[in-house]
Amino acid sequence: MSAVAIAPLAEPVPRTAIVLLGTGVVGRALLTLLGTPAARSLRLVGAANSRRQHVLADGVTPGEVAERLAKAREGRDNLPLLAALDAASATRKVVVDATACAIEASRHAEWLAAGYHVVTANKALAGGHLSGWRALQSATAGGAVYGDAATVGAGLPVLSTLRRLRHCGDSLLTLEGVFSGSLSWLFNQYDGSRPFSSLLRDARRLGFTEPDPRSDLSGEDVARKLLIIARNAGFALGSDEVEVESLVPEALRGVDTKAFLDRLDELDEPLRERHAQARANGKVLRYLARLNQRGRARVGLVEVGHDHPASRLSGTDNQFALTTTRYHATPLVIQGPGAGPEITAQALLGDVLAL
Amino acid sequence: MSAVAIAPLAEPVPRTAIVLLGTGVVGRALLTLLGTPAARSLRLVGAANSRRQHVLADGVTPGEVAERLAKAREGRDNLPLLAALDAASATRKVVVDATACAIEASRHAEWLAAGYHVVTANKALAGGHLSGWRALQSATAGGAVYGDAATVGAGLPVLSTLRRLRHCGDSLLTLEGVFSGSLSWLFNQYDGSRPFSSLLRDARRLGFTEPDPRSDLSGEDVARKLLIIARNAGFALGSDEVEVESLVPEALRGVDTKAFLDRLDELDEPLRERHAQARANGKVLRYLARLNQRGRARVGLVEVGHDHPASRLSGTDNQFALTTTRYHATPLVIQGPGAGPEITAQALLGDVLAL
Ligand SMILES: NC(=O)c1ccc[n+]([C@@H]2O[C@H](COP(=O)([O-])OP(=O)(O)OC[C@H]3O[C@@H](n4cnc5c(N)ncnc54)[C@H](OP(=O)(O)O)[C@@H]3O)[C@@H](O)[C@H]2O)c1
Ligand SMILES: NC(=O)c1ccc[n+]([C@@H]2O[C@H](COP(=O)([O-])OP(=O)(O)OC[C@H]3O[C@@H](n4cnc5c(N)ncnc54)[C@H](OP(=O)(O)O)[C@@H]3O)[C@@H](O)[C@H]2O)c1
Repeated sequence: MSAVAIAPLAEPVPRTAIVLLGTGVVGRALLTLLGTPAARSLRLVGAANSRRQHVLADGVTPGEVAERLAKAREGRDNLPLLAALDAASATRKVVVDATACAIEASRHAEWLAAGYHVVTANKALAGGHLSGWRALQSATAGGAVYGDAATVGAGLPVLSTLRRLRHCGDSLLTLEGVFSGSLSWLFNQYDGSRPFSSLLRDARRLGFTEPDPRSDLSGEDVARKLLIIARNAGFALGSDEVEVESLVPEALRGVDTKAFLDRLDELDEPLRERHAQARANGKVLRYLARLNQRGRARVGLVEVGHDHPASRLSGTDNQFALTTTRYHATPLVIQGPGAGPEITAQALLGDVLAL
Repeated sequence: MSAVAIAPLAEPVPRTAIVLLGTGVVGRALLTLLGTPAARSLRLVGAANSRRQHVLADGVTPGEVAERLAKAREGRDNLPLLAALDAASATRKVVVDATACAIEASRHAEWLAAGYHVVTANKALAGGHLSGWRALQSATAGGAVYGDAATVGAGLPVLSTLRRLRHCGDSLLTLEGVFSGSLSWLFNQYDGSRPFSSLLRDARRLGFTEPDPRSDLSGEDVARKLLIIARNAGFALGSDEVEVESLVPEALRGVDTKAFLDRLDELDEPLRERHAQARANGKVLRYLARLNQRGRARVGLVEVGHDHPASRLSGTDNQFALTTTRYHATPLVIQGPGAGPEITAQALLGDVLAL
């Protein structure tokens, strides 16, 4: 409270104070957005990467964060960051999680219970064990908000739409779509003319996959998104209740990244066969996530006809088709870019501004 | 205030009191939804059709409205309805406009300025003269909310998405789509094998068109939706700045509904020619709304290729493709049922619950 009293009168108390965890691709894009007029009601009071954190003095601009962080002492501790949020005496205190770290995710519920809003691109809690999801539900009962737009479709209005429908008494019946930008691109391109491994190398070079493409090919990231959507729709699905088909051959699951990248052509033969089979059936391959009316969830490669909406995707587009009690003749479909630092950062900013 | 004091303690003050203008197709669907658990925080305190209004005593259920209204004295006056909102001592007072009446629309700004929230399916104000739109902007400056989800795509998350992006500093560059359920259906079906008039008769019988289909065929309704979206995106477009191609031949514009319906086959020849031309070009016809980067707005029949997203619509689906500064490689597309009483009513309920 005294912090307010001694602040110079010309410097208004910020309406929203935030700390940023993660200054990778998405975190840096958010720092750029924080320097724009749209973010003028926000004040960044601290930031962290995996090794250091730094509390920002008044007047330090988002553009200077990287440099300050580089000079900070080694050793990670969130306490000074939370203290900086408290000291800002802002109306709203927000932790923004732009990491993929399960340990940070495991703290979301605790922060919410303590009254900090949490805005996250990190799927590890809501898309992890059901107990984590349940902890989240109780933690938000006190009024702190969990901003999760960035966790699914990089901010495509999927979760917000679903919650809005549900709030009106509408229920999700089925869900189907392409939830991964890299897998979308790979199967939109793959027509048998080039080996799959060669496309995969392109995708990696273009930045569409993680440095280790097995993170994409395993389907685990898609499964996490399916869990997040399904849970928001009221299905209390356990993380072991999603059937996931991995595109990574058994033999390549345990090896290190370099060895995996050296042996990429081992992917080719099985996929060539699947593709030939699909073509013989007049179909194409798509890596789909599906939740059916009985709550059965599956993520994997599917042959779809040329009239299937997923057959017509382009680029790295995601697609989410929702069938509900009231959207039943044809589904409500949301489609578009579902990855990329700028739109993901915008999704985080949107959630912060919506508080 | 005294109304609170004398209310029995067991009857809590409703959080939100609403009056409903219009008990047509959409209004009746909303009355049904008001009887469901999703609407339990709402209390309907009055309703009106074009000839009568009625203030509802405590305990009258939404299902009894039609009957009460039928017994009410003739003569329309909104004052008793607004007084009923005030008397309810609710936290939020809402006028829901489910009419297509321009006179009621012209009162929206006045109600907002007086502190009533307005939730509307009626496009006449926001999609009418620019002066009306401007009046709306000043009227909402005081904090009352204008709920307009039902005016575009019957609640598809188009306007909310656009506003969210804009709030984050993103700008709409171009907009394209199919904004009319009836015109979507007609051109999704029309392949030259049957005369257009015969499809139009089917569409009317199925309830996809207005009783006088010229309301759909004139393109005016599509133009109003385009205006609403463009204005929400920051384009101060005048209603005369949308170029509208009407599908109603000159000779049929002035005649009465019966005469129009008797002469429907006069539509056939011009459309047959357009269709043959499109087919010769390897294309299909779609009735599109378009806003380009220079703010030029046009509504009309367009030949599109088989790779155009609108070529793949089915049923009465609407489609909205938004290209923005940050969604530029491929657009953000929202697609699905864009008309129908139940989803339109749900959009109204969603806006009321979001207050
Ligand atoms: N990229 C996209 O298009 C996209 C789209 C949607 C969602 N996401 C999600 O967004 C998150 C971030 O993605 P990204 O692409 O930005 O990843 P990234 O480039 O690998 O960056 C991750 C950042 O998190 C930091 N970090 C790791 N552990 C931390 C900890 N305990 N405390 C603080 N910082 C920590 C890393 O620190 P160091 O710099 O020290 O390594 C790095 O700065 C992930 O959850 C991802 O799934 C990304
Ligand atoms: N139907 C859809 O799928 C859909 C979708 C999106 C948006 N909308 C919009 O929703 C609105 C309603 O559509 P609708 O299909 O329900 O139309 P409708 O069936 O023709 O009903 C219109 C209702 O408005 C009443 N009304 C007219 N003037 C009035 C006034 N001054 N005060 C109070 N009530 C008045 C009419 O009264 P009477 O009963 O006395 O005639 C009637 O009950 C329109 O603006 C339409 O464009 C409709």
